[in-house]
Amino acid sequence: MNVLDVIMAKRDGGELTPQQIDWFISTYAAGEEIADEQAASLAMAIFLHGMVPQELSRWTQAMIDSGATLDLSDVGRPTVDKHSTGGVGDKISLILVPLLAACGAAVPQLSGRGLGHTGGTLDKMESISGWRADLTLTELRNQLATIGGVIAGATGDLAPADRKLYALRDVTGTVESIPLIASSIMSKKIAEGTDALTLDVKAGAGAFMSDVESATTLARTMVRLGTDHGVATSALVTRMDDVLGRAVGNAVEVTESLEVLAGRGPADVIELTVALAEDMVRLAGLDADPASLLASGAALTIFEEMVEAQGGDLGAGLPVAEHTTQIKATSSGLVSAVRSRPIGNAAWRLGAGRARKEDPVSATAGVICLVAPGDEVESGQPVLELHADTPALLEQVIPTLDGAVQIGDEPLPSLPIVIEHITADSL
Amino acid sequence: MNVLDVIMAKRDGGELTPQQIDWFISTYAAGEEIADEQAASLAMAIFLHGMVPQELSRWTQAMIDSGATLDLSDVGRPTVDKHSTGGVGDKISLILVPLLAACGAAVPQLSGRGLGHTGGTLDKMESISGWRADLTLTELRNQLATIGGVIAGATGDLAPADRKLYALRDVTGTVESIPLIASSIMSKKIAEGTDALTLDVKAGAGAFMSDVESATTLARTMVRLGTDHGVATSALVTRMDDVLGRAVGNAVEVTESLEVLAGRGPADVIELTVALAEDMVRLAGLDADPASLLASGAALTIFEEMVEAQGGDLGAGLPVAEHTTQIKATSSGLVSAVRSRPIGNAAWRLGAGRARKEDPVSATAGVICLVAPGDEVESGQPVLELHADTPALLEQVIPTLDGAVQIGDEPLPSLPIVIEHITADSL
Repeated sequence: MNVLDVIMAKRDGGELTPQQIDWFISTYAAGEEIADEQAASLAMAIFLHGMVPQELSRWTQAMIDSGATLDLSDVGRPTVDKHSTGGVGDKISLILVPLLAACGAAVPQLSGRGLGHTGGTLDKMESISGWRADLTLTELRNQLATIGGVIAGATGDLAPADRKLYALRDVTGTVESIPLIASSIMSKKIAEGTDALTLDVKAGAGAFMSDVESATTLARTMVRLGTDHGVATSALVTRMDDVLGRAVGNAVEVTESLEVLAGRGPADVIELTVALAEDMVRLAGLDADPASLLASGAALTIFEEMVEAQGGDLGAGLPVAEHTTQIKATSSGLVSAVRSRPIGNAAWRLGAGRARKEDPVSATAGVICLVAPGDEVESGQPVLELHADTPALLEQVIPTLDGAVQIGDEPLPSLPIVIEHITADSL
Repeated sequence: MNVLDVIMAKRDGGELTPQQIDWFISTYAAGEEIADEQAASLAMAIFLHGMVPQELSRWTQAMIDSGATLDLSDVGRPTVDKHSTGGVGDKISLILVPLLAACGAAVPQLSGRGLGHTGGTLDKMESISGWRADLTLTELRNQLATIGGVIAGATGDLAPADRKLYALRDVTGTVESIPLIASSIMSKKIAEGTDALTLDVKAGAGAFMSDVESATTLARTMVRLGTDHGVATSALVTRMDDVLGRAVGNAVEVTESLEVLAGRGPADVIELTVALAEDMVRLAGLDADPASLLASGAALTIFEEMVEAQGGDLGAGLPVAEHTTQIKATSSGLVSAVRSRPIGNAAWRLGAGRARKEDPVSATAGVICLVAPGDEVESGQPVLELHADTPALLEQVIPTLDGAVQIGDEPLPSLPIVIEHITADSL
């Protein structure tokens, strides 16, 4: 097998053969023979020519085969997981994992470290004193069997080819490719051993995919891939224009999640959590009502057990920033948008996210949105609150938030957060 | 400037700005900031989206600006050069350089080392005892002023960005791109400081571009680039199906060139040499008749002076292979093809060409075609003669030459070697 033949086949618009795919992924993952510049050239050719479904299915399988796969069939509960393409203020996993456990499922939510806007789920959980992300396989199984929910770091053994390929795509302008995104996400989730999977594919100004059409194509592609590989998969295409909930950061998002788990909290977070939970319950074949289990506080109890099992101490309270400042409305009217892109960037610059994998994140930095779309505000009223570890960061970030909260005259139509529900049957 | 912005602009089908082009080429050539995988990703995006004329012109200028340029305005003769895209048995430079010097021009033919089928022009010349390719700039100028013709190694100072980019393209499946080929060739030729340039763009089974349409597009692109940069440029699109002349190798091609310079030799070599020479004479504004200067032996005298000036000793005779074998016709009839691709590959495998830049080449290895298209042959008559340094190589190569000489019943139409003549006026 010759890497140039593989590159040129795709460059010229052809389909890669199963043998070419298996050889490329296994050889590149092994770090032999195939140079990064050759993989980059192939990635750009795939970006521009795409892959047909059977080709993408094999590519995904080859990524799975590059590492270990978990067998969770003995945990005594149906397994179901969720993956989100990521949004600003998206703390849904922290609520959904214990909620599904309360419904009777086992949820093996294994995450990587986040890059960009804000930290990932692990960074949020690590703002809880003592909590540790790294579990052994035995600890993972035990916790799934007893408590039902686990949020933990993904072991490097799952789809290691993806780790290498993703790092390459990140520096070569080949990230935003539907087949490459779909195979990256699905290889890790399929390797994780879950029976069922609900995907939250965001569309809008604050999402990775800004237009609904691309998000829907990505969602369909992933549902097909999961289904092809024996995982009961469906997807919700959801709106990501305004910040989700009120808090953007790490500890501040844990605090908001605890409110939702206690039966309170922002309506949009509850709406999305329940929509995803109902889909997961359906896929897992359970008979449970997530909305009432959320309202009852049953999920909160499980969250507390999950945290304790992983060494965390909620009783110690969550850390708070030493320095805060508020941004005020410059006119009166009705809030028409709380724009996720500038607010996400502000939280990142305040220290809540990282630019490189090695960077530390601040547990306390972030932004609290004091108003939500539709709220009436008066000129001079505080609309955003910034949290940081140093006052200099606050000063730097303030000018970037001009126009982040938009104020108008007209009431807005209230749009549902779920745009489309894609099931295996609807493909 | 951010390399991802440059990659993504081209990936999404846009034009690169002059600033992006200048920054990319100078930074990549300097070996800083831009990784090979990033340049590979951009090369594939250019391969698939192309470049518009002004973009390509700037790209070529940036490649020229990456190194030194020669100023040959003081050599006292009009300067003119030729570049060929390469064919099997193409020894035309060895004849054309002294022929144009005999016409009154100065020909600064600076070449790189060849890869592939057979060695390049330098490898052929180095089969002459004592001849050296490396000249100082002063030696180059002196020889151009006094003798008029120079064949020498290109200094690494000319368009160094091209050397780096070509090495990358070679391993990433991005060689066969018209803008990338055109800028690679033309940046080096423009940097060389020639006033005029004739391009020999081959089309056919033995050429880099097999179809006439692609070859014509490449030719037009290069004529435009040269003209844009103030070099009087034109191109001949020429046929490359059968071997050019009879000899394929290094010393064997020098021997054949000496025959042509002595007013003998194969008709196709003479036809192509004279066609290119007439174009070069026209571009250089000279009043000379290349055909008669070739027939008179005037060019041979200059070739001998060129060789002597660079330390070569033609009197020592050219080296000959220790081992030869002949391949015989298996039927009787008229030769319909002497296929350049298998014969070129055979010469390469016998040792005449190299797979890697560092590989040595054999001076004596090669193939002599004992028949030409249109010749009548009888079954059992020798049609090819193989030359090698070891008998084992001959044995290995013999089976690859099945069908290399095709024998039929019908006389063939005689086709002119020049398919199209593209001048700046005809663009």
